[in-house]
Amino acid sequence: MSNGTAARPDLRQSERFLSLYTPPKIDGDFTGKHIISVEQFDRRDLQILFDATASIRKRIRQHDRGLLALTAGRLMATLFYEASTRTDLSFQAAMRHLGGEVVAASNGVQFSSIYKGENLADTVRAVGCYADVIVLRHPEVGSSYEAAYYLDLLRQQVMRQPVVISGGDGVGEHPTQALLDMFTIFDMKGRIDGLDITMVGDLRHGRTVHSLAKLIAIYGAQDTTLNFVAPQELSMPANILSFLEGRGLTVNQTDNLYDVLGHTDVIYWTRVQEERFEDPASYEAIKDRFIMTPPVLAQAKPDAILMHPLPRKHEMGTAADHDALDADPRTVYFRQMENGMLVRMALLAKVLGGLWV
Amino acid sequence: MSNGTAARPDLRQSERFLSLYTPPKIDGDFTGKHIISVEQFDRRDLQILFDATASIRKRIRQHDRGLLALTAGRLMATLFYEASTRTDLSFQAAMRHLGGEVVAASNGVQFSSIYKGENLADTVRAVGCYADVIVLRHPEVGSSYEAAYYLDLLRQQVMRQPVVISGGDGVGEHPTQALLDMFTIFDMKGRIDGLDITMVGDLRHGRTVHSLAKLIAIYGAQDTTLNFVAPQELSMPANILSFLEGRGLTVNQTDNLYDVLGHTDVIYWTRVQEERFEDPASYEAIKDRFIMTPPVLAQAKPDAILMHPLPRKHEMGTAADHDALDADPRTVYFRQMENGMLVRMALLAKVLGGLWV
Amino acid sequence: MSNGTAARPDLRQSERFLSLYTPPKIDGDFTGKHIISVEQFDRRDLQILFDATASIRKRIRQHDRGLLALTAGRLMATLFYEASTRTDLSFQAAMRHLGGEVVAASNGVQFSSIYKGENLADTVRAVGCYADVIVLRHPEVGSSYEAAYYLDLLRQQVMRQPVVISGGDGVGEHPTQALLDMFTIFDMKGRIDGLDITMVGDLRHGRTVHSLAKLIAIYGAQDTTLNFVAPQELSMPANILSFLEGRGLTVNQTDNLYDVLGHTDVIYWTRVQEERFEDPASYEAIKDRFIMTPPVLAQAKPDAILMHPLPRKHEMGTAADHDALDADPRTVYFRQMENGMLVRMALLAKVLGGLWV
Repeated sequence: MSNGTAARPDLRQSERFLSLYTPPKIDGDFTGKHIISVEQFDRRDLQILFDATASIRKRIRQHDRGLLALTAGRLMATLFYEASTRTDLSFQAAMRHLGGEVVAASNGVQFSSIYKGENLADTVRAVGCYADVIVLRHPEVGSSYEAAYYLDLLRQQVMRQPVVISGGDGVGEHPTQALLDMFTIFDMKGRIDGLDITMVGDLRHGRTVHSLAKLIAIYGAQDTTLNFVAPQELSMPANILSFLEGRGLTVNQTDNLYDVLGHTDVIYWTRVQEERFEDPASYEAIKDRFIMTPPVLAQAKPDAILMHPLPRKHEMGTAADHDALDADPRTVYFRQMENGMLVRMALLAKVLGGLWV
Repeated sequence: MSNGTAARPDLRQSERFLSLYTPPKIDGDFTGKHIISVEQFDRRDLQILFDATASIRKRIRQHDRGLLALTAGRLMATLFYEASTRTDLSFQAAMRHLGGEVVAASNGVQFSSIYKGENLADTVRAVGCYADVIVLRHPEVGSSYEAAYYLDLLRQQVMRQPVVISGGDGVGEHPTQALLDMFTIFDMKGRIDGLDITMVGDLRHGRTVHSLAKLIAIYGAQDTTLNFVAPQELSMPANILSFLEGRGLTVNQTDNLYDVLGHTDVIYWTRVQEERFEDPASYEAIKDRFIMTPPVLAQAKPDAILMHPLPRKHEMGTAADHDALDADPRTVYFRQMENGMLVRMALLAKVLGGLWV
Repeated sequence: MSNGTAARPDLRQSERFLSLYTPPKIDGDFTGKHIISVEQFDRRDLQILFDATASIRKRIRQHDRGLLALTAGRLMATLFYEASTRTDLSFQAAMRHLGGEVVAASNGVQFSSIYKGENLADTVRAVGCYADVIVLRHPEVGSSYEAAYYLDLLRQQVMRQPVVISGGDGVGEHPTQALLDMFTIFDMKGRIDGLDITMVGDLRHGRTVHSLAKLIAIYGAQDTTLNFVAPQELSMPANILSFLEGRGLTVNQTDNLYDVLGHTDVIYWTRVQEERFEDPASYEAIKDRFIMTPPVLAQAKPDAILMHPLPRKHEMGTAADHDALDADPRTVYFRQMENGMLVRMALLAKVLGGLWV
């Protein structure tokens, strides 16, 4: 235990803030609320957010400059303790398209605060003295809860009320990814109720699929089936399964994609990493079921959609496979990207209390 | 002397620009002036700046969008040769809140110009071809003087008049830190005259306390007492002491905090680093006087204020100590952060010649 | 061949996109076109662009806020896979001065996509889901062609039409550098026709001189002489020479600057690197002809101009030499910097379809 926490009692552990801090329920009003967990939302909140997203998309396509008034004069700071170009640029673009301003550490956070040994609680409050909203990406579970906790304390000391929006914390949650994924399903299929949805890959460690599955349950989807396709050792964790239980969903677990591929409406593909397997032979035995290629997609329904959070690597085969898949109208992962910016625009506008979105 | 300057006669030494270049006095007019030393200011200049800062704060709290016109169309570039998240974000946020624009090297300066071996004189002029104001953070003493020198030369070659504002150069000056600290004292105590002000920690190497002490002297504070609390080997340098001499200040030096804690109005806390001591035993002997904890603060006056430039580490004890101190209304370090942005807004608006601030 | 491309058939090679993708001709209309090669331009296009640049310069000097409307509501993303502070800041400043917005990966691209192993095709499309224009700097030849190819595919999947502008790809092209260089010649000498233009240094590896020479040929300059001064082993490549052939230019090659210095109108100086020579003695023998110092410049015509793409190192002598050269009115490299921003403003405004520039 030489470098355990017992030996460094002065270090805060972000994870304990998961129990110390309860994220505020949205309950129809986003204004001034930290966004750190999918559990803050209910069906109505999701409907409000997705309606706003659709409206913003329409206005963006019309080049409606009125959008530029929605967060004018408001400042977003990005604090990325680990790199994520997509999430980072998506949030920045969202804020810019609403007329708001963005600041980010010029040299990246990793060269500054961490280098000087400052803890997250102080860094977040220092930035909260300048910014109206902080987008936090951090490798530790619970870090966005810790940020929310200390920003609430800060409100008593300075005349500002900054909020934090999670851009992903460790193997914990990544709420805006789940929101954009769910919006994409809505947008492509027109509904969540009654769909057959399949998640494939490393479901044990995949933050993305955990949050999306929970969000579908939170929405209270009716007659919806969730198929979890994973190797035995990488199957969906028990705590997620118990969260889903008794919420009107049908859950199937299998390690064979072909059990469900022919009748599923939504395929959500993620990566299985060879390194996760103790026995290379067991990876060899199943890997073909976890690499999406044009012949695999050929067996899906003509109106299915293929989703992926990106970045993708070998789980979608070779560069030639990528090109072939991209040409198939059922692949929607670049739409997911676009929707990511739009959902974040809706969220920022609502949280910062724009007059309307 | 194999790698000394004699062996590389082609390298400019930033430090020699301290004698080559004389920073312009403000003398009531900030427009178009480089800001690189506290010695440019006099009492009236400080009063003008602090009045503008207070006015800007009032307007920000009223969400006055008129602020967005003050530097509209003007461009700030940040050139940070060493990381400083706080200073960096504070300047960026200040410029944004005034409606101005900001550019920064996407990958950090350290990956580009230095990598390619370009000297500061050329980099600063290249950036001066795009920007109206350059915020420079550099590890070498005199670097902001060198920047000012070459930007003045540039004015003869291009149709622009860019200015540099120092964001700290090496162990030299950090003028905007001193300005925000002094504004905070004014703001919390209503005056500088007649105060008992205590600076604690490594006063030998602390750029922050050097600049603040000089600025208090420059202000011409009357009946003000400066207490310097430091271990013998880390006491305030002779050149600072001689600067303060004969300017109407009372100066006390001690290595025992408790000599002054009970009657001081302002406590400015900084870090003492164990590594500075040749003999570990001598650090052990004094360290308790240089760690601020709730029991220490309990011995201060009820209306004292506790300042710190942040980031803080073990000089404010454990994480639990941090939390307890933060809950004490006498701690004002997050207000210092907020004031940092406000003072920089006032400075940018005045230097860039906004119609009014 | 263990790590050759044969062993990794899934990797795209950017270079093959040089033949796969044909950049669109400008043909009088810049709107929505990728800018990745000087070969897209003809004489009329250059005239249009340079007229717009001159007009923008005039308006910037008048502080004409109308410029801020030209790209308002449009978003530029910078994707720099290698550092280039100048190009990066110049593009950012250009977009800002037109009222547009800029996003850049906060931690630099090298810490994110590459780290996660994503290929350029996917990264560029992901960013294209947010941005209207992507400025790409990449170490591989053909990378901007690859980006253009995949962005065209993306247009079929999302409701956006993002364009790429090359910020330099490897030893390939750097079109905006050539444009700013040519504009500078126009601006200082009033014409290209009839000039005697000398390029000096490593002409074999110098991307900058390749692009500029081609652009002068493309312009169809009449009675113009190009002198290429380089050591034998670093002379202008055959493919560039053949491109220039039969386009009305007179081409001279020499390794002796003094053959041409006395009668040249434009001197374009670049670096010769000692490391390029197999035999150190052959570098020693010629190096004095490839270091520009005040005594060398003294032998040039009184109305000649001395250009350099910057950054400069020892090819312009010591720091004292730099200072002396900079004081000579014939040196125009900082004007080149300024023009770089102005040409990029004209280009961005035209590509993004501003109502007018």
